[in-house]
Amino acid sequence: MDAHLKEIQKDSRQVYDGHFLKVQKDTIVLPDGKESIREYIKHPGAVTVLPLFDDGSVLMERQFRYPLDRVFIEFPAGKIDPGEDTLECAKRELKEETGYTASQWEYVCTIHNAIAYSDEHLVLYVARGLKEGEFLDIYKAPLSGLLEQVRNGQITDVKTVIGVFWLEKILSGAWTPPARPAGV
Amino acid sequence: MDAHLKEIQKDSRQVYDGHFLKVQKDTIVLPDGKESIREYIKHPGAVTVLPLFDDGSVLMERQFRYPLDRVFIEFPAGKIDPGEDTLECAKRELKEETGYTASQWEYVCTIHNAIAYSDEHLVLYVARGLKEGEFLDIYKAPLSGLLEQVRNGQITDVKTVIGVFWLEKILSGAWTPPARPAGV
Repeated sequence: MDAHLKEIQKDSRQVYDGHFLKVQKDTIVLPDGKESIREYIKHPGAVTVLPLFDDGSVLMERQFRYPLDRVFIEFPAGKIDPGEDTLECAKRELKEETGYTASQWEYVCTIHNAIAYSDEHLVLYVARGLKEGEFLDIYKAPLSGLLEQVRNGQITDVKTVIGVFWLEKILSGAWTPPARPAGV
Repeated sequence: MDAHLKEIQKDSRQVYDGHFLKVQKDTIVLPDGKESIREYIKHPGAVTVLPLFDDGSVLMERQFRYPLDRVFIEFPAGKIDPGEDTLECAKRELKEETGYTASQWEYVCTIHNAIAYSDEHLVLYVARGLKEGEFLDIYKAPLSGLLEQVRNGQITDVKTVIGVFWLEKILSGAWTPPARPAGV
């Protein structure tokens, strides 16, 4: 049903290869036969961990984000290494960023955060059975407080907003986390 | 409380100025005094419109997104022009992308979709009192169906996922859209 929307690659080249960002510039053919340009970031993808305590509270981070010159409230997250399984990545990032480990892991969802100019995807997992770490700038927060911070605009990072909404669905029993899809 | 997290700009230069993407590469000073590099996309920001019919159904688009080589289910959205008010941008984008106009507009929230490597923000508005357009690849969908598509992974675009969760909060009466903040 979507053939009339498809854009076909005619030429593809890397136009910037930086410390972190890689920019691709492709010539494409539109459905009407005309040519156009598409520029986008090549990204390996990332994981986000929703660390959930038995009492229903959640482990959060505060992180300075230079592009926006301020601190964001976030779930722990990080980029997928080449060839790394997303669940292994989630376990590694939780440990590296918070010092915590978890005994139970469930896939939650996959999201695409900048579809106009990046191929990044984020895979979200819930982590339960948390064992304590002791890093700075992490803290426990009740889900009700996080929802209030989404509502009043104190939480705006998309992976965190979406994780908070999903946790509400999961903890209320309205939604059960789905099976982890093949290829994720 | 966040001074120990702050990163200070030491040097800033544009390293790529493309058709659409602009990449900035800054040298920064970390809180511990060490220097590091931050690369990120300079983005003007964007708006997203949640077009809501009186019967509770929602106007959606299907759009091919080249970086991920597939069609996404999305709310209408688009970039803010230089100096453009975000509400005017929302009205313009709804008309340009769907042909619809709306008589009532409410600010919903602002989100940040790629805080590691872009300064992009998205401002979400609800549009009510819709007057019909007739463009292709738009369609009416019940909110319950959109929530199911978020749950089962058919909707993954972050602005759309977050918009669907907010519409559920608004339509159930659990949340009232906040006043539009100054500077948005």
